[in-house]
Amino acid sequence: MESVRTIEWLGKSARIIDQTKLPNEEVYIDITTTEEMCEAIKSLRIRGAPAIGIAAAFGLVLGAMEYKHLSLIDFREKIKTIGALIVNTRPTAVNLGWAVNKLLKSSDMEKVDSTQNAIQKMTNLARAILEEDINLCKSIGTNGANFISRDPVSILTHCNAGALATGGQGTALSVVYELSKQGKSVQVFADETRPLLQGARLTAWELHKVNIPVTVLCDNMAATILQQRKVDCIIVGADRIAGNGDTANKIGTLNLAILANHFEIPFYVAAPYSTFDCSIKSGQEIPIENRDPGEVKGYGKETFTAQNSKIFNPAFDITPNELVDAFITDKGIVVKPYNETILQMQLNS
Amino acid sequence: MESVRTIEWLGKSARIIDQTKLPNEEVYIDITTTEEMCEAIKSLRIRGAPAIGIAAAFGLVLGAMEYKHLSLIDFREKIKTIGALIVNTRPTAVNLGWAVNKLLKSSDMEKVDSTQNAIQKMTNLARAILEEDINLCKSIGTNGANFISRDPVSILTHCNAGALATGGQGTALSVVYELSKQGKSVQVFADETRPLLQGARLTAWELHKVNIPVTVLCDNMAATILQQRKVDCIIVGADRIAGNGDTANKIGTLNLAILANHFEIPFYVAAPYSTFDCSIKSGQEIPIENRDPGEVKGYGKETFTAQNSKIFNPAFDITPNELVDAFITDKGIVVKPYNETILQMQLNS
Repeated sequence: MESVRTIEWLGKSARIIDQTKLPNEEVYIDITTTEEMCEAIKSLRIRGAPAIGIAAAFGLVLGAMEYKHLSLIDFREKIKTIGALIVNTRPTAVNLGWAVNKLLKSSDMEKVDSTQNAIQKMTNLARAILEEDINLCKSIGTNGANFISRDPVSILTHCNAGALATGGQGTALSVVYELSKQGKSVQVFADETRPLLQGARLTAWELHKVNIPVTVLCDNMAATILQQRKVDCIIVGADRIAGNGDTANKIGTLNLAILANHFEIPFYVAAPYSTFDCSIKSGQEIPIENRDPGEVKGYGKETFTAQNSKIFNPAFDITPNELVDAFITDKGIVVKPYNETILQMQLNS
Repeated sequence: MESVRTIEWLGKSARIIDQTKLPNEEVYIDITTTEEMCEAIKSLRIRGAPAIGIAAAFGLVLGAMEYKHLSLIDFREKIKTIGALIVNTRPTAVNLGWAVNKLLKSSDMEKVDSTQNAIQKMTNLARAILEEDINLCKSIGTNGANFISRDPVSILTHCNAGALATGGQGTALSVVYELSKQGKSVQVFADETRPLLQGARLTAWELHKVNIPVTVLCDNMAATILQQRKVDCIIVGADRIAGNGDTANKIGTLNLAILANHFEIPFYVAAPYSTFDCSIKSGQEIPIENRDPGEVKGYGKETFTAQNSKIFNPAFDITPNELVDAFITDKGIVVKPYNETILQMQLNS
């Protein structure tokens, strides 16, 4: 049950699976410049908070390599500019800034003695971030599977918080994979997740690859699935979690959290420690990316929305902390009161 | 501000606007047989509970005309069979059975003396049902506009409960049209309404035609719209309302009702008296149509769901009575306790 490799480092390029082509074509592309990586992140060829954190790190390494001839002082100025460029591709996920800052710090003047040395350190660190993510995913999965501990178990998820969203086997879907490895009979309901259909395209595709039963539904059908008691719990990923537990995730997550609350079905957020951002106090401070209206007006070659319609297209929403029953993290299960427990987890990291 | 004519009777055929072609093409087709009408209803060329009630009536008239040479006894047997065929095209909306039964009763042996006479009576009644629907829509709109009485006012709606769903100016959207006629500054948020996108395709199209501002959103974005307090109330239509107020309507309606309840925003259902079915006690008795998985797997020429995925595709859901703040009907505003008030309204009809 080997999950897909969303991103890997080939020494002078990063190979990613082009998620805009899934599920109809399985195409891998080799990214050789920062510009290509920024384009890949913006256009969602690679997406998912942990995965774009890793992509950001390698994107910065690729940029750094182009300036190996510069003096260390000039080099450091240059990579700061490149880092800002990468961080600005998508504002909501904390992982971009987290990874870029880690790499920038590793090349601090006092830590390196040459540009070559700085590039080496950054490359090693980017590879370490990818390796760490694989382990974080695994821990999230194990912790979640032990916590949920039901058999059979039916899980509703939204968007794609799987292998395709990370360097490893995912966050929310990692729990599914670990339940399956434990021999539990697990089935998944996947919201299709308009407008870009990551649930229908990506979650269904990656679960199929490992023969885990999945049923796709339109986002507005989740209420009926819950009303019919077909689901034991909801697990989603996260793009950024504020210090109080307010959670930014793919648009439609708030909707599910409210439904779960109404039907008294547990609602869990699965994420690594790096997704928690204690520098901000609440969800109101999380910047929300608004994307191109064209994404809502149609899909692929089809345009179905009446001409000249105004369009609302935020990529994420904010789920208030009180609607999250627990966070499933690599450090364990984090429960209320989040203001205390999240800080405690961060201090232990 | 003349609204579109969804269905009209031309003497020997019924002209309908082909809603599968909207919004890209405005195509009208002349239906000349029962079979054509059944196909048009099943494939949603005409849809919306009141509109398919009218279509059912004219579909039966078209069938009856083919048997004008039969004896009255044979004729009556024949049209019962045709009626059953029409009623079975779509099981959820009560209007099909309501209209067909009305026509069958009008040709009772004791009321007519010849096949010719029976056909004449049925034709007149079908025309009367269309005329009545125009008036019912108008009354729903006036009652709703007087009840809501805000300025400016922002309304969220789902699917299409407009002129395209009725013989007149709609149910939920009739309230919007009447608010606009009263000079109120009204704006509409329209859920796109997957899988068949009646909100994006039809509601946006018909509101544009009369210059009422409309913003289209994906169904999973409604929670954010409500969280941001951009909406004063939600108004939807209905396909069948049980005696206790449980409401069957387009899939996704239950979702909105739960969100409205969570955010304490009023949730109204607009429908004519004929949509209430006091022969059944609760929503559990309403048959729910499950439609072709292909509707969810893609749209038009695009297929985006991973191959072999299982699909969940109910066309309607059931909103429990306690989540409906009021019914906006042609007879006035119906409030709780619905077990009493709905029966009272039906007795007055």
